Order: sequence, then structure tokens, then C-alpha cells
Amino acid sequence: MRQGLIQIYTGDGKGKTTAAVGLACRAVAHGLKVCYIYFHKNPERWKYGEHDTLRKLGIDIFGFAREHPHFYKKASLKKIREECLKGLEFVKKIYQEEKYDILILDEINISLRDGFLKEEEIMEILERKPENLELILTGRGASKRIIEKADLVSEIKNIKHPYESGIETRKGIEY
Amino acid sequence: MRQGLIQIYTGDGKGKTTAAVGLACRAVAHGLKVCYIYFHKNPERWKYGEHDTLRKLGIDIFGFAREHPHFYKKASLKKIREECLKGLEFVKKIYQEEKYDILILDEINISLRDGFLKEEEIMEILERKPENLELILTGRGASKRIIEKADLVSEIKNIKHPYESGIETRKGIEY
Repeated sequence: MRQGLIQIYTGDGKGKTTAAVGLACRAVAHGLKVCYIYFHKNPERWKYGEHDTLRKLGIDIFGFAREHPHFYKKASLKKIREECLKGLEFVKKIYQEEKYDILILDEINISLRDGFLKEEEIMEILERKPENLELILTGRGASKRIIEKADLVSEIKNIKHPYESGIETRKGIEY
Repeated sequence: MRQGLIQIYTGDGKGKTTAAVGLACRAVAHGLKVCYIYFHKNPERWKYGEHDTLRKLGIDIFGFAREHPHFYKKASLKKIREECLKGLEFVKKIYQEEKYDILILDEINISLRDGFLKEEEIMEILERKPENLELILTGRGASKRIIEKADLVSEIKNIKHPYESGIETRKGIEY
């Protein structure tokens, strides 16, 4: 039986979410079942192209805590925390179902970095992971303790980014 | 009209090819036309799941210089160089056709790093890029000059990798 690892894509560079999406694309072609859960992204505000594509590939997608104070100045921090906790409860339900081979928690590192989730709450998710499930965490600011617990960690460093030269976010490329 | 940039995903960590694949997934959902060209990968030896998925999404895929001395000890270095050059000629043909919005050159940095292509040959490809085409280069060992020419560069650093703990390459995850 295959062993599932914990993978982390963190750092300030472009490519964390897309690396997880690309991994999902690779996996489905081998017949693996993938679940993709995103945090702090609101598809009603932006069209995340990758969500449409993942759905088309038969991947199940769920979203939690769609608001983030960076974009929603008046967002209730208490409500965001509650929704992140709902996300973790949902993950535990998925653990019990044993329906998937790969579970992606997109931008969950942000939930920790910005104080919506506590480190021990994420650690519990890592510790209770079913043996055969591959768990992927993305987002800036993965903590030292979480990195220690993971099996594979890639830090995506921003060497150069066009935002710095004043080029704006582009549909189809950045979202 | 949208401006196309040059993006590079380099470094020794996992996530370079998958980041490009994820970017392609995002782009097609916005109606952009993507072409994916890989170097030094032989789909007859390994099933690259992502190739099947990209094809399914209507993305055109081409491969050049499928052998690499790392896997084919008896490979002719001269023949590999010739095939890499054919790849570059093909890229120039694509430039003329103006059929695509995004062109991915997967692992082309390896062609340079391992001496199959010269830096000036890659630089010519970067310099002749049509203005509206987004060009993505992946692979370890992007040179300083190429990084300088690019608009967006992410270095994917290996912080921790399970190969180091003796876990073998896994179907659906690593290829």
C-alpha cells in the first residue's frame, strides 16, 4: 500500500498554488482521487481559472473562510476564525471517509500566519492524517514546527516579480 | 492588448514543472491557448500523468531530446544537442504562427545547464519572443543572464525531500 506524505509549498514567490494544482493534474491521470480545499479565496470576487479546470477533471473542490482582511477591510476576524475551524472539521470528516488519495489545503498556511488558526490546530491535522493520504499545504509563512513535521518542503523564493515593475495582476496568469 | 512576460521556475526543489502545469490549467479556463514543450523527458519510459491531463484540456504538447545521459548512459550527446536545436527551431516556428497565448518550455534550463544548448541560443529565444506571448521556462540551473532577462523568477528551494529519507519515486506524485 502506498504511503502518503505531507508536502508543503511555502515562501514569497509565485508558484505555490499552481504547484499544488499541477500535482493534482498529474495525480488524476494515474487514477488517484484528489480533493482540493481552498482558504481565503472568494471565487465570487475573482474567477480562479484553476478551480474550473480542477472541477472539469473530476476533482472535488471546497472553500472556507472566503474573506480575508487584506481584501475585505471590514471582515469579522472572529467569523473568519470560525470558518477556518469549520474547514478543519471538514478535513477530519474527509479523514474518516478515506475517499481520497490526495488532499490539498490551499493557502492554509495563511490561516496560521494571520492568526485565524493556532499552530496546535494545524499540527493536529498533520498528526491525524491517515497513513495512505498525501496531504499538501500551501501558502506563505509555514511555521518551523509544521515544516519539521512535513516530509517534503519546497520554499518558493521570489527572485524577481513584475508587480515590482508596476505590472498589474493579469487574468489567466495570476488567478 | 495583453503584455506577455518571461517567467522562470528554477531551483533544486520539487514544484517547477507542476507550477507550469498549474499555470496552464488556470490559463485554459480563461480561454487562453497554451502550448507545452518538454525537453529530456521520455513518456515511453515513464507515464507523465500531467501530459495526459494537459492533452485532455486541449493543450498542445510536443517533446524534444527525450533522452538524457542521466537516464541513458549510452545516449549520444551530439544527437541530444541536435534535438534540442530542433526544439528551438520549433519554438521560432511557433513565434511566427502567433497561435498561442502561453508557451511553456519545460526543463529547458537543463538543456543549458548540461551543455546541450548555449546561453546565446536560449537568449535569442527570449529576445525574439512575440510581445503578447507569455513564455515559461522551467528546470534547475537557470543562468544569471537568463534570470536578468526574465520578468518573473521563482526559485524553488528544496528545504526537505523524502528521497533523502529513502522514500522512492511514486507514480502520480513525482511523475
